[in-house]
Amino acid sequence: MLFVLPVQIRFAHCDPAGIVFYPRYFEMFNTIIEDWCEHGLGSSFREMHMHLGYGLPVVNVECSFLKPTELGEILSAQLSLNRIGNTSLHVEINLFGPDNVQRVGAKMVLVLMDMKTRKAIPLPQSLRQKMLQYLK
Amino acid sequence: MLFVLPVQIRFAHCDPAGIVFYPRYFEMFNTIIEDWCEHGLGSSFREMHMHLGYGLPVVNVECSFLKPTELGEILSAQLSLNRIGNTSLHVEINLFGPDNVQRVGAKMVLVLMDMKTRKAIPLPQSLRQKMLQYLK
Amino acid sequence: MLFVLPVQIRFAHCDPAGIVFYPRYFEMFNTIIEDWCEHGLGSSFREMHMHLGYGLPVVNVECSFLKPTELGEILSAQLSLNRIGNTSLHVEINLFGPDNVQRVGAKMVLVLMDMKTRKAIPLPQSLRQKMLQYLK
Amino acid sequence: MLFVLPVQIRFAHCDPAGIVFYPRYFEMFNTIIEDWCEHGLGSSFREMHMHLGYGLPVVNVECSFLKPTELGEILSAQLSLNRIGNTSLHVEINLFGPDNVQRVGAKMVLVLMDMKTRKAIPLPQSLRQKMLQYLK
Repeated sequence: MLFVLPVQIRFAHCDPAGIVFYPRYFEMFNTIIEDWCEHGLGSSFREMHMHLGYGLPVVNVECSFLKPTELGEILSAQLSLNRIGNTSLHVEINLFGPDNVQRVGAKMVLVLMDMKTRKAIPLPQSLRQKMLQYLK
Repeated sequence: MLFVLPVQIRFAHCDPAGIVFYPRYFEMFNTIIEDWCEHGLGSSFREMHMHLGYGLPVVNVECSFLKPTELGEILSAQLSLNRIGNTSLHVEINLFGPDNVQRVGAKMVLVLMDMKTRKAIPLPQSLRQKMLQYLK
Repeated sequence: MLFVLPVQIRFAHCDPAGIVFYPRYFEMFNTIIEDWCEHGLGSSFREMHMHLGYGLPVVNVECSFLKPTELGEILSAQLSLNRIGNTSLHVEINLFGPDNVQRVGAKMVLVLMDMKTRKAIPLPQSLRQKMLQYLK
Repeated sequence: MLFVLPVQIRFAHCDPAGIVFYPRYFEMFNTIIEDWCEHGLGSSFREMHMHLGYGLPVVNVECSFLKPTELGEILSAQLSLNRIGNTSLHVEINLFGPDNVQRVGAKMVLVLMDMKTRKAIPLPQSLRQKMLQYLK
């Protein structure tokens, strides 16, 4: 199963060339993962960060920017999982244009972390269970 | 008439104190104005910037941050107009918490500008007409 | 006395019109205030936030964008104080171009805050003493 | 030869966990590359974008976040080149803490692009010559 979300390209995302400034894609990815946690897994960032003291920091990212994207375009973001480790999560996010041509492809490794000790912690069984449906 | 929009507070908006970092509010205002132009006035930023060569830069802003806002809260943004000038627009945006308490209040002056000459230009009659319904 | 600092306009600050996207000015202001606290007052944000548990949130800002600023320009930021209250600070920041023409002028009210209780606290006497030299 | 630059971690870079929000690293990388172009290669982004109509978009990035970095820390950024292609540039940027421990390591591929046609163009001989000294 894919978690699919529309992402509208805003003026704030764009650079002097009129296309998305690439660091803004990583802010979009963060928002996509936020929405996936809340709506796909039923566990919001607010709950994780403010009540449970957990975080989901990115430890590695590999990203290709295949085609430029312009102000006002609405992309389709598609999230899936390539691997669920003991404490880590291999997430793939692909962005497609309204023309169905892929614009961006990213693979990132996230780790569940106790924000106080800054140590990785095992993914809770209930969370892992919900994640399984997004595994390729 | 008010233009009303929900605004979700994202991880990317928040600072080390766990509350919205105030420059992020201005990015939100920009997005709210983008949405208002597109959905309230029928004239998207994409069309304005990329086809007409117009911009709507902010020339003055006055903003009060009344209460802090936390990660995950969904605010209600309410936009209205205080004045429609010849080339300028006096916009008011208020943000309310889920508790209906006002968090932020902003008044800003925008000017319609020809982006090539960087000179203010009169608001087209058709745009002015649609703006009138948002005038207080 | 003025606290003066050069500010270089980066690609990341600029919008599709090739000029500074106005929310980025507020990020610059934050950095200017950080540098002023550290180098002008001898009290870094790191020390304030991480060791003392203080913050300096902005509660009100009024800002005029007088002339657009382009990629690569180096502005001169000039900070001074208009008022030192019991718990608050009235800061003025003006940005001038390499042509000595003013680009931006901002007045903001900051409050010293205990980040745990989120209550305003009186400015410590030692800090107030150092602030006095920047008072107009 | 390495191009070395200090990078101070600002309040604006940090997230609710008090550490750098990872998309901000990519903004730092962009600024490091800007400084390298201007001071290392003698060809500023302003000149490239505004006068020559060139851009240096990133087409691929691989980045590891090895250790978290906190507000106020001053990192040492070290840039070198892994490869100089016909139209592309393989840049490596490593960030080290004041403790000399590596915090972040990134490899990115940039392409020299004509911003009007959005086509890759060969690196001019004079630029390539200056780049050679940073090649590993």
